[in-house]
Amino acid sequence: MASLNDNYLKLQAGYLFPEIGRRVRVFCEANPEAAKRLIRCGIGDVTEPLPPAVIAALHHAVDEMAVRETFKGYGPEQGYEWLRTAIAQNDYRRRGLEVADDEIFVSDGSKCDCGGILDILGAKNKIAISDPVYPVYVDTNVMAGHTGAANAAGAYAKLVYLPCRPANGFMPQPPKRAVDIVYLCSPNNPTGAVATREQLTAWVNYAREHRAILLFDAAYEAYITDPAIPHSIFEIPGARECAIEFRSFSKNGGFTGLRCAFTVVPKTLLARTAAGEFKPLHPLWLRRMTTKFNGVSYLVQRAAEALYSPAGQAQVRALIGHYLGNAAVLRDGAAQAGLTVFGGLNAPYLWVRTPEGVTSWQAFDHLLNHANVVITPGSGFGALGEGYIRISAFNSRANVEEVSRRLQALKW
Amino acid sequence: MASLNDNYLKLQAGYLFPEIGRRVRVFCEANPEAAKRLIRCGIGDVTEPLPPAVIAALHHAVDEMAVRETFKGYGPEQGYEWLRTAIAQNDYRRRGLEVADDEIFVSDGSKCDCGGILDILGAKNKIAISDPVYPVYVDTNVMAGHTGAANAAGAYAKLVYLPCRPANGFMPQPPKRAVDIVYLCSPNNPTGAVATREQLTAWVNYAREHRAILLFDAAYEAYITDPAIPHSIFEIPGARECAIEFRSFSKNGGFTGLRCAFTVVPKTLLARTAAGEFKPLHPLWLRRMTTKFNGVSYLVQRAAEALYSPAGQAQVRALIGHYLGNAAVLRDGAAQAGLTVFGGLNAPYLWVRTPEGVTSWQAFDHLLNHANVVITPGSGFGALGEGYIRISAFNSRANVEEVSRRLQALKW
Repeated sequence: MASLNDNYLKLQAGYLFPEIGRRVRVFCEANPEAAKRLIRCGIGDVTEPLPPAVIAALHHAVDEMAVRETFKGYGPEQGYEWLRTAIAQNDYRRRGLEVADDEIFVSDGSKCDCGGILDILGAKNKIAISDPVYPVYVDTNVMAGHTGAANAAGAYAKLVYLPCRPANGFMPQPPKRAVDIVYLCSPNNPTGAVATREQLTAWVNYAREHRAILLFDAAYEAYITDPAIPHSIFEIPGARECAIEFRSFSKNGGFTGLRCAFTVVPKTLLARTAAGEFKPLHPLWLRRMTTKFNGVSYLVQRAAEALYSPAGQAQVRALIGHYLGNAAVLRDGAAQAGLTVFGGLNAPYLWVRTPEGVTSWQAFDHLLNHANVVITPGSGFGALGEGYIRISAFNSRANVEEVSRRLQALKW
Repeated sequence: MASLNDNYLKLQAGYLFPEIGRRVRVFCEANPEAAKRLIRCGIGDVTEPLPPAVIAALHHAVDEMAVRETFKGYGPEQGYEWLRTAIAQNDYRRRGLEVADDEIFVSDGSKCDCGGILDILGAKNKIAISDPVYPVYVDTNVMAGHTGAANAAGAYAKLVYLPCRPANGFMPQPPKRAVDIVYLCSPNNPTGAVATREQLTAWVNYAREHRAILLFDAAYEAYITDPAIPHSIFEIPGARECAIEFRSFSKNGGFTGLRCAFTVVPKTLLARTAAGEFKPLHPLWLRRMTTKFNGVSYLVQRAAEALYSPAGQAQVRALIGHYLGNAAVLRDGAAQAGLTVFGGLNAPYLWVRTPEGVTSWQAFDHLLNHANVVITPGSGFGALGEGYIRISAFNSRANVEEVSRRLQALKW
C-alpha cells in the first residue's frame, strides 16, 4: 500500500494569499463601483515591462532556435558557462569577492532553490528562522519533516523562531543555543529591513563557531541604496566556510514571469556526515541539480545574460529607481498619515505599524473597504507580524501616488 | 553542527555520460582527423529547430513582455489555465479520456517531476523499477533514502528490480510480491519497447489490488505508430485510482532547450496516511508545486500552447516523422549489418544486441574507434542492459544514413 508524506498534513492551510483573494473577491462583488478603483499593493510582483536589452536578447535567441545550425537542445543543468561567468564576474569578482564560475548554479527561481536546498541537508538539523518570515522557508521544512505540529498560533514545534522587532532593526540576532541551519533574508521580505555588516559578521562568527550553515536570501540586493550595507554574505570574512547565497533576476530584471535565479554554493562549505566527517556540499548540490533539474530555458538564460550588458545594467538601475521612487512616495504618504513606517529605503517593501489597537487583518479590511487598497496583513508572516501591514512598492507611479493620497485621507 | 544528507554518499559516481564524454575526448585528441567525422547517436537530445508555430508564438509573447499593458509577472505556479485546458482537451478529453484541467500540472521538465513526486510520497514505500532503466528514477530514490547501499554491480539494496528481456518484450511484469510504487516508461527509454494494453491492464489490476501507485512516464508517447498501443495510462480502466502520468514537450515539440512538461495527478488517486486512512494525493502535489515552484516561463507556456494549434500539430507530426524515419534507416542499417535490433518502431531509440561475446563498453569503444560513431552502452542503464547498446535516432537524415553505411561496413 503506497503511503503519502504525512508531513504535508501538518501544513497550515495556505492561508495568507488565498484569504486575501477571498476577501478582495467578496468586496468587489458587493461593491462593483469601488472595485474599479481598487489598487493592489499586496503581492510582491513587478509591474514594469522587461528592459529593452532583455527583449532584444530574447528575440535573438528565439531566432537562433528557429534554425538547425544555431538551435539549442539540452544545456548544462547548472547553467550555461557564459551566464555563470557573467554572474560570477559582475556580481562577485568585480566587487572583490571570491566566487568561482562553477560555484554558481543557475535555476528557474529562488523559491525553488530555497526549497530544493533541503534535499542535500540532513534530516536532524535544528532549523532557525526569523519571525516574521517568508513562509516558503517554513513550509518547505514542514514538508521535509524537520518540524513537529503547528500550535494554535501557527508556530511549528522544533523550529527555532528568532524574533524581529523594532529594537533589533527587524534583524534577528544569533541565539544563545546552538542551531544548525539559519535562514537570513536581507533586504528582508516582508519587513524591508537590511542587515548591517556588524549583524552579518555576528552571524558568520556564530555559524563558524557552531559549524552551522547560513542560508542567505539576497533576492532583493539590488534595492540596497546605503553603501554601508553588504549586498552579499560573501562580503563577510569567513562566509565561504558557512554560507549559501540565493539570488534572483525576478526583482532586478523584472523576471517574475520569465523565471531565472541562481544559488552560490562555495566549494569550501562543509557539513557533517553521519560518520562524523566533514564533507563539501558543492558536489551534492551539483548532483542534485544534474539529477533533478534540466536547466533553465536557453532563451531565459540569454535574457539574464543581457542584464549584465552596459545597456542592461542601466535599464536595471532605471527599474530599481522606479520602484524605490514608489517606495519613497508610499513612505511619505504613510508618514503624513501618522503611521509608523519601517523599510522601503533599501527594499521594495514597507513595513507599517497599524494604529494602536488595530490588528493586521482589521487594518487590511479597513484599507480595502475605505481606501480600496489591497495590502498584506503582517500576521500572515508570523506571530510577530501582528500589528503590522506590508505595503509593496511594485506598481506604477500614478498608482502609488494615489495610494499615498488615500492613506492620508483615511480615517481610522 | 549542520549535517548533510548521507543518502547522497550512496550514489554511484555519475558514471555513464561523463565516462562517455571522457572516452570521446581521449579519442578526439588522439585522432583529430577521425574526430571531424564523428557522429553522435548517444544522448537523446533533439536536433531539429523549433516548429514555426512555436517560433511565432515566442516572438509574440516576447513582444507582450515589452509593454506594460500586456506584461506578465508571476503566473499560477501550476500553469496558466489556457495551457492546462489545451492539454486536457487535446491530449485526453478529445481522445475520450477523463482528465480535468486542474489535474494537469505544468512544469519545466519531466525529469524534475519524476524526482519531485517523491516529495509527496512516504519514506517507507517499497519501490519497483525496471532493469534496464532511466537512471533518474533510481538516483532520486537513493537521494530520498528509499534504498540501501549499492552492490558491486551497481544495484541498490531495498529497490525491487523488474527484469526486462526479449522474452517479455522488454516490459516488466507485475511481481509476485507486493510493492508500493512502480515506475513504468512506455515508449521506453532506453529500450524503445512499448507496453501493450494487456500489459498495462495487468499493471493497473496489480496496483489496485495492492493499493500501489504507478508512475507512468509517457514522455515519448508521440512516437507511437501502432494504433493498438495506449498513449496514456488513463486509457486503462481503473488507472485514475492508481496512476500518475508524466508527459513532456521535449521530444514532440523539440523543447529540450525550451523546458516544458506536465504531470497528471487524478483527484481520485489516494494514498495511505500513517494513521491508516486513505487521502488524495492531488492536494499534496498542488501544495508542493505552489510552495516549491514558481511556474514555467510565460514565453514557454505560450510556446507549448502553440503546439496544439492546427499548424503546430502538423509541424509536430512532421518532426516525429523525421525522427521515426531516422529510426527506420538505423534499424535497416543495423539489421543489414547482422545485428539483432529491438525498438525504433514506436520510439526514437534502438536497442541493439552486441555481437556474441562483446560487452556494451567494448561495443562502444569499437564503434567509436572504427566507425567514429558515439552510442550509449546498455550496461549504463542497469545490469540487464549488458550486451546491448542504445542508438538514438535524434539526428539529421544525412547523419543517420552515414551511420547506417558505417554500421554495415564495420568488422567486429
